[in-house]
Amino acid sequence: MIQSLESCAKSGARLVAVAAGREPADLVIRSGNVVNVQSREVLDGWEVAIAGGRFAYLGPDAAHTVGDGTRIVDAGGRYLIPGLCDGHMHIESGMLTPAEFAAAVIPHGTTTMFHDPHEIANVLGLAGVRLMHDESLLQPINVFTQMPSCAPSAPGLETTGHEITADDVAEAMRWPGIVGLGEMMNFPGVIAGDPKMLAEIAATQAAGKTVGGHYASPDLGMPFHAYAAGGAADDHEGTAETDAIARVRQGMRAMLRLGSAWHDVEGQITAVTEHGLDPRNFILCTDDCHSGTLVNDGHMDRVVRHAIECGAEPLVALQMATLNTATHFGLERELGSIAPGRRADVILTSDLEALPIEHVIARGVTVAVAGEMKVDCPHLDWPAETRTTVHLGRALAAGDFEVKASRATDSVVAKVIGVVENQAPTEALKARLPVIDGVVEATEDMAQVALVERHRATGRVVNGFVSGFGYTGRMAMASTVAHDSHHMIVVGTDRACMAAAANRLGEVGGGVTVWKDGAEIALVELPIAGLMSDCPAREVAAKAERMVAAMAECGCELNNAYMQHSLLALVVIPALRISDRGLVDVDRFEVTGLFEDAA
Amino acid sequence: MIQSLESCAKSGARLVAVAAGREPADLVIRSGNVVNVQSREVLDGWEVAIAGGRFAYLGPDAAHTVGDGTRIVDAGGRYLIPGLCDGHMHIESGMLTPAEFAAAVIPHGTTTMFHDPHEIANVLGLAGVRLMHDESLLQPINVFTQMPSCAPSAPGLETTGHEITADDVAEAMRWPGIVGLGEMMNFPGVIAGDPKMLAEIAATQAAGKTVGGHYASPDLGMPFHAYAAGGAADDHEGTAETDAIARVRQGMRAMLRLGSAWHDVEGQITAVTEHGLDPRNFILCTDDCHSGTLVNDGHMDRVVRHAIECGAEPLVALQMATLNTATHFGLERELGSIAPGRRADVILTSDLEALPIEHVIARGVTVAVAGEMKVDCPHLDWPAETRTTVHLGRALAAGDFEVKASRATDSVVAKVIGVVENQAPTEALKARLPVIDGVVEATEDMAQVALVERHRATGRVVNGFVSGFGYTGRMAMASTVAHDSHHMIVVGTDRACMAAAANRLGEVGGGVTVWKDGAEIALVELPIAGLMSDCPAREVAAKAERMVAAMAECGCELNNAYMQHSLLALVVIPALRISDRGLVDVDRFEVTGLFEDAA
Repeated sequence: MIQSLESCAKSGARLVAVAAGREPADLVIRSGNVVNVQSREVLDGWEVAIAGGRFAYLGPDAAHTVGDGTRIVDAGGRYLIPGLCDGHMHIESGMLTPAEFAAAVIPHGTTTMFHDPHEIANVLGLAGVRLMHDESLLQPINVFTQMPSCAPSAPGLETTGHEITADDVAEAMRWPGIVGLGEMMNFPGVIAGDPKMLAEIAATQAAGKTVGGHYASPDLGMPFHAYAAGGAADDHEGTAETDAIARVRQGMRAMLRLGSAWHDVEGQITAVTEHGLDPRNFILCTDDCHSGTLVNDGHMDRVVRHAIECGAEPLVALQMATLNTATHFGLERELGSIAPGRRADVILTSDLEALPIEHVIARGVTVAVAGEMKVDCPHLDWPAETRTTVHLGRALAAGDFEVKASRATDSVVAKVIGVVENQAPTEALKARLPVIDGVVEATEDMAQVALVERHRATGRVVNGFVSGFGYTGRMAMASTVAHDSHHMIVVGTDRACMAAAANRLGEVGGGVTVWKDGAEIALVELPIAGLMSDCPAREVAAKAERMVAAMAECGCELNNAYMQHSLLALVVIPALRISDRGLVDVDRFEVTGLFEDAA
Repeated sequence: MIQSLESCAKSGARLVAVAAGREPADLVIRSGNVVNVQSREVLDGWEVAIAGGRFAYLGPDAAHTVGDGTRIVDAGGRYLIPGLCDGHMHIESGMLTPAEFAAAVIPHGTTTMFHDPHEIANVLGLAGVRLMHDESLLQPINVFTQMPSCAPSAPGLETTGHEITADDVAEAMRWPGIVGLGEMMNFPGVIAGDPKMLAEIAATQAAGKTVGGHYASPDLGMPFHAYAAGGAADDHEGTAETDAIARVRQGMRAMLRLGSAWHDVEGQITAVTEHGLDPRNFILCTDDCHSGTLVNDGHMDRVVRHAIECGAEPLVALQMATLNTATHFGLERELGSIAPGRRADVILTSDLEALPIEHVIARGVTVAVAGEMKVDCPHLDWPAETRTTVHLGRALAAGDFEVKASRATDSVVAKVIGVVENQAPTEALKARLPVIDGVVEATEDMAQVALVERHRATGRVVNGFVSGFGYTGRMAMASTVAHDSHHMIVVGTDRACMAAAANRLGEVGGGVTVWKDGAEIALVELPIAGLMSDCPAREVAAKAERMVAAMAECGCELNNAYMQHSLLALVVIPALRISDRGLVDVDRFEVTGLFEDAA
């Protein structure tokens, strides 16, 4: 059962009556060592009483709050820590719906998430954001939504399924689960005074909500200062100690992230552990976690453990994942600490460093014990249009992936996207390619890449070449996860396989598929917006694992190759990318021709 | 001139343009050592640029923000600290209007006050609160209003000029300058679940604002826990280290006060300096300051200096008077630190311990230099009804102060209010008093006390006896400052003098007057609500000083005797008080007869 939660304002009378001993509590946790993140102490042997999903009493003896029907949990000397908060993240990165994401992370002690549904915004616009928001509010834990700020991420260089406007932002600020603006990624726009970006920030500030930042540049000079002046209240793009220090000095909170691929805690937490900065402005987050990470490694528990391993005092690390986060979003009276009036989100653990998540209570209800879920995470009934977002317009054929030479020649010099292992930026390469029967052919060390428009059924296919994956034989791989506008990216060595893979995703409504020698050898169905599955994380993680194995079977041995695949259209990161508008020279921020010479 | 201030939301474009070097700043402060309360560091040689009353740039070199018309202040290596915030206070305690209070404290570096106009609420109700709120918003510094919660303070035991209802609270939450609910003094009501008190708290929480607390009991057991469960977010009534620790553990902020008569910092700050609690939840405030304190000793600068003398690190003490306060009221993006976007409230000082307030800038405008005001503090045009609040109904005569014996006797045993030096509680004494011509007479070691109803012109006078002031000869003293319902209290040894004093206050519209041998020897006019003067603090302080001297001339040598006088009707503090309903036995919370036997 899910604890239906009254507002703080409506809970007062009951909480007072329980604390005063006039009414019995719903739940009392006895004999715990309470981690008090407000005072930064451990209070040995303290007890809590919970009523209506909120803490009513915290003190040395809750006996007076126990009555008929009060459930008792004996902590047996274990620690009580507040439920963990993820200060910034994208649910879609787990390829899971909010419900299934919640079900995956609750056993890891996450009881609050602040998520930015940026990916679905690109596919379904404000309506998609609303659905994520609505399913978030159904959960037995606190899932708050940050309104996406930048769809498209690169106006003029890509076409999204829908755009987000400043009016959309203003409207969303009135929704109950919206806590602020999602990361303002268009930092060049803010710095340049782009009126649309500033209007989104202003709408958020006028609503008294929190403006999320994203300053993805190592330049801490004038552009950084201009961005800080624009109003971003936090930033999670720092990687070095100097980044974290610079942000905090500007009155921004430094969010330190440990995601599946992000490892930015160790390099920055020394701002506190060695440089001695006041820790109050540091927040832990994940940003992006794959389902496999959630299943195998954990979520915010993993981040807190890591912060402690990096030298943070356990209580300070816990503050960074509880109170600091709540304060940042103006929710410190609502959650983030074990104190009267707050949502009764609490974890029992027997060790403050290893941090085993033994018993998780959210809003006064036991939601997980020893890694097992004890409640359901309700699904929204996602409307049909969210499950039919792959609009190819027609069946694709091998010929759609032919790159025609425009003149009679036996070779051309083409621009080639060079994927580099473990790096987000690509290289802008050039290669002389043979022309056979008027068709430009990839050489053996490269593959073709195609961007298949899938939002407006235009049937448009943009073709190009990519190197670095190491594919051999006859293969293709297609994905409708294709940041940020999420068209379909197909990479392959065989045009028939490429067409088959693309059509397959049209058939299943999106996902990732790998084909070899004319047959599908792996499939991850992501039917919702082509981004998410409403199956459990364990199933999705198994399919994703199979997908990675299939890529290896096709000859790809790159680390994190799927991420490279899904970022081929990310036209905000250098150097050469592909979009529905054509090949994009990101360094010059313009669409460019495929051929170096006049082919 | 006063800096008209645009909202943060409307300022963004200008701030970015200045930080980026595209537009010139209004003001640049060069070569300062910036106290960064966000990171808790001093940044040597840093500079700030200010535009539109807000910080646009904070960094090592603001040269790029200087243009034609940019004013330059060279800090010459002095420290830049954020303007100081008073976390909880009553402007009326200074006997000054908001404008004159602001003018008195700006030279001391106070740039933000959170004030609870509880006194005027008792006299003029919601309309009075609105006027205080409106004048507050005219000031060149930030004067936020907390909506008074408890008028009357003791329902049933006193009659105020107006009452404050839960609907009033809900309405006030929509006013622009209201930041929350003023101290919820009716802690027995909260603990007992009084619906009116809980409705006021709920209205405040529903508006997303801060609930001020006031738990004036040493009992840290069940009643304290019940009060904490009621939703108070802070408390300034603690006096001992255990009080402060207990509050912070419950997720309440501990406000440590140093007022004219309150000395509660030294006893509690050890919670941080010795007990090692996280300092973020500690806030400094004054609560009540007399005009003399403001003129002679200072305001928040005095409190910060004192906290440092008590062992707090200077940067931690400054956080307690800047960032911690701003965060508490949800204003950390708006003020309380030197950081982009915040109101440009900054002090230049050459020493972080002695803390001389050398130059005060508020919203980017120099408001005081070396103790001298450089701007005006605008007055509201207070409406006539606020200047005519002493409604006696008729001229009082000596006979009104006669205590008649109801039967033929030569003596009676009367209850006597015993004033104790340096203590707020009074003693409930008894004395056998002579009856002469049917009138009960005070003996030489005591005086008469009368409560003259002044809100509704009923002409009602409640008479009693008081001991402890030490008055001799023929004298009387009257005051319309008479906490909390602010009728008129007259103490005297001579009934003709008492009548003359009372009539005199009726004539001048309120204040304090001292009479000796039939003539007035001191007068402090407080024409606004009978509580405040709109003359400068220096003038009011001089008159108040003369008043104290006059009391001494009448034989009173008690420390702080005027405060004792003005608290004689404070029917929430034991043991025996006087109200318009009669003599009040505060221990039993009931009106009681004047005579012990059936007189």
